[in-house]
Amino acid sequence: MNPPLLLVNATLPDGRRVDIHVRDGTIAAMGDLGATKPTGVERIDLDGAIVIPGLVDGHIHLDKTLLGLPFIPHLPGSSVAERVAAEKTLRRSLTMPVEQRAIRLVAQVVASGTIAMRSHVDIDDLVRLDGLHGLLKVREAARDHADIQIVAFPQSGIVTLPGAADMLDQAVRDGADLVGGLDPAGFDHDVDGHLDVVFGIAERRGVGIDIHLHDFGPLGCSELRRIAERTAASGLGGRVAVSHAYALGGVDDGEFGRTAEALARANVAIMTNGAGPVPMPPVKRLAAAGVTVFSGSDNIRDAWSPYGSGDMLERAMLVGYRNELSSDEDLALALSLATTAPAKVLGIETYALAPGMPADLVAIPADSLPEAVVDHPRRKLVMKRGRVVAVDGSLLAPLKI
Amino acid sequence: MNPPLLLVNATLPDGRRVDIHVRDGTIAAMGDLGATKPTGVERIDLDGAIVIPGLVDGHIHLDKTLLGLPFIPHLPGSSVAERVAAEKTLRRSLTMPVEQRAIRLVAQVVASGTIAMRSHVDIDDLVRLDGLHGLLKVREAARDHADIQIVAFPQSGIVTLPGAADMLDQAVRDGADLVGGLDPAGFDHDVDGHLDVVFGIAERRGVGIDIHLHDFGPLGCSELRRIAERTAASGLGGRVAVSHAYALGGVDDGEFGRTAEALARANVAIMTNGAGPVPMPPVKRLAAAGVTVFSGSDNIRDAWSPYGSGDMLERAMLVGYRNELSSDEDLALALSLATTAPAKVLGIETYALAPGMPADLVAIPADSLPEAVVDHPRRKLVMKRGRVVAVDGSLLAPLKI
Repeated sequence: MNPPLLLVNATLPDGRRVDIHVRDGTIAAMGDLGATKPTGVERIDLDGAIVIPGLVDGHIHLDKTLLGLPFIPHLPGSSVAERVAAEKTLRRSLTMPVEQRAIRLVAQVVASGTIAMRSHVDIDDLVRLDGLHGLLKVREAARDHADIQIVAFPQSGIVTLPGAADMLDQAVRDGADLVGGLDPAGFDHDVDGHLDVVFGIAERRGVGIDIHLHDFGPLGCSELRRIAERTAASGLGGRVAVSHAYALGGVDDGEFGRTAEALARANVAIMTNGAGPVPMPPVKRLAAAGVTVFSGSDNIRDAWSPYGSGDMLERAMLVGYRNELSSDEDLALALSLATTAPAKVLGIETYALAPGMPADLVAIPADSLPEAVVDHPRRKLVMKRGRVVAVDGSLLAPLKI
Repeated sequence: MNPPLLLVNATLPDGRRVDIHVRDGTIAAMGDLGATKPTGVERIDLDGAIVIPGLVDGHIHLDKTLLGLPFIPHLPGSSVAERVAAEKTLRRSLTMPVEQRAIRLVAQVVASGTIAMRSHVDIDDLVRLDGLHGLLKVREAARDHADIQIVAFPQSGIVTLPGAADMLDQAVRDGADLVGGLDPAGFDHDVDGHLDVVFGIAERRGVGIDIHLHDFGPLGCSELRRIAERTAASGLGGRVAVSHAYALGGVDDGEFGRTAEALARANVAIMTNGAGPVPMPPVKRLAAAGVTVFSGSDNIRDAWSPYGSGDMLERAMLVGYRNELSSDEDLALALSLATTAPAKVLGIETYALAPGMPADLVAIPADSLPEAVVDHPRRKLVMKRGRVVAVDGSLLAPLKI
């Protein structure tokens, strides 16, 4: 167990200046500690930085990243299927094991204040369960830096790929936390066949669901409503998410309203990373309709995109910028996409800065949370389970596997 | 004059490792200097960072920024006219002079490697020429940090604002480098009346033009073609730019093609900052059509937007991300928006890293230029006129006025 310590001159989001006493991995006390201030423990001066309970990345692909390798030029592909094929070609040429690439990405995101994340991992005919087994090792190696949830992701389809359904089922039995899906119509051309497998595994194994959905327009919206129906029918409300859901951007008000209402009623969450060139789910309208919206980094320097830093505060800025979230209230919504919303989706019930809660936190040198979002300055300190893991944007010690 | 110095271990974009001998504000020699390497001068080790001739910001509003003040919550406005009114209300409450706010922004952008910029300055019935006179002082105070070009910008219109035309003319006589315009149709409701004033001043005073155009769709495209016609008729080709030009995003191929061709033929440049929520000019299609496209920060923490860092490498990333510029060739195009393209638009004829050229440069710790764009790491060193002005993202000495 790590020695106790005292964070002094922390600023809470409401402006109060407090000290935080950390002991046995939890927040022992917080406030103007006065006479109860512990003595003889290490003191760290946060110099007024704002403290929140850490950033949460709701969607990352730890297995795909090319970090640790020389910069590999991007090869464009014009459809999901083309890109899947291009990625497989690239992957065959990689000699660095998935664990080595993934751990570098974990280190990078932790340095920016992420204390928990949901990573998808490709399950297909090429890697089979190797990527999963690699990420299970990464999850263990990184357990004192971040909590990692793993989604078994059928990147090459289910219905159209012999053996995929069995591999997904095996992946969950081997330790994946959720089962994923991919464009039931656009990729697999069989919406119910695809969802039968996904919901079947989820119900049989008692796990949640997170489906990639890139299909646009009314087709994508009809898939979203079908997912909502099946969620309600299976009693999985609160444990189902759809990632990207571009379809929610660029449809008419009627189509949008029907779909948002179905998602809210079934308690299906929507993940958006503020994609650059395509229509995106309108965050404010969805939130107003009662839909849980959260965010994630998505691709970070991999076969799908050369972009991405893994900094969830920068991501909140980007999604906010794309959605014209500009008032203080709107910027709070942008920040929630990287904090409370993904914490809820990931089922982190202890996500709060309060005595008795885990000492997971990030300190941001900004005068207010709206300023923290727009400026996303280098993090002053990151703490996981009561231990300081990063200072001034850098890990204190290398994260190894 | 500053003492000579030697930058060692610089990497050129083509991968060559060189030393750069800087003397009397210019690059005296560059390459493997061997026996000609100067002795007895200060040596600065760039540790392999890539060196380019500095970043150029093609569109900034130095007078609008609220930097230096506590974070002021954003008040949304749904039209250009509403926002102009909201800005005037806010401006009446400001007590910090424009010079003090603007110099902070200059310091911030210089720290990220910007060595030249084009700033618009509001000319209206409230500030009249006060903002211009403030920025003229800022230009002088910052002359050893960055070259500043000033556009007299009619933020409250021309035709609809009595006295505006005379103020713009006076602004140019007082030292503004270009004359601006604003939505000739959407704001002033008189395209030719507006352009008569703008082109009239440009021709009479021998200055260039940079017009803000937010009008969408076919209306905006028709204005772009009218501007192209008047540019050709007045012989001002190469000295006229249109900023934003949202209309070029979201029109059909015929409308786009006609307009892009007219702009290319008349040599009218287009500025895009990769605006978040609105359609944007398609950078790659415009470049392919022969149109000069450049970028700029636009609003940085002001009444128009709480967002913005002033980092033109981050801006290149953002515009690239919005335009899905992902291959190495495409990322080179993204970088050009913040380097060669605005340098050409601003008329910087010495924009090159070569012996005899001004020693204006930025060193970026990245393995390649594509990586520099996607990662936009903190700048290792910024040099202006042969003097090191910033190291590791911070100015060496405060910039004062």
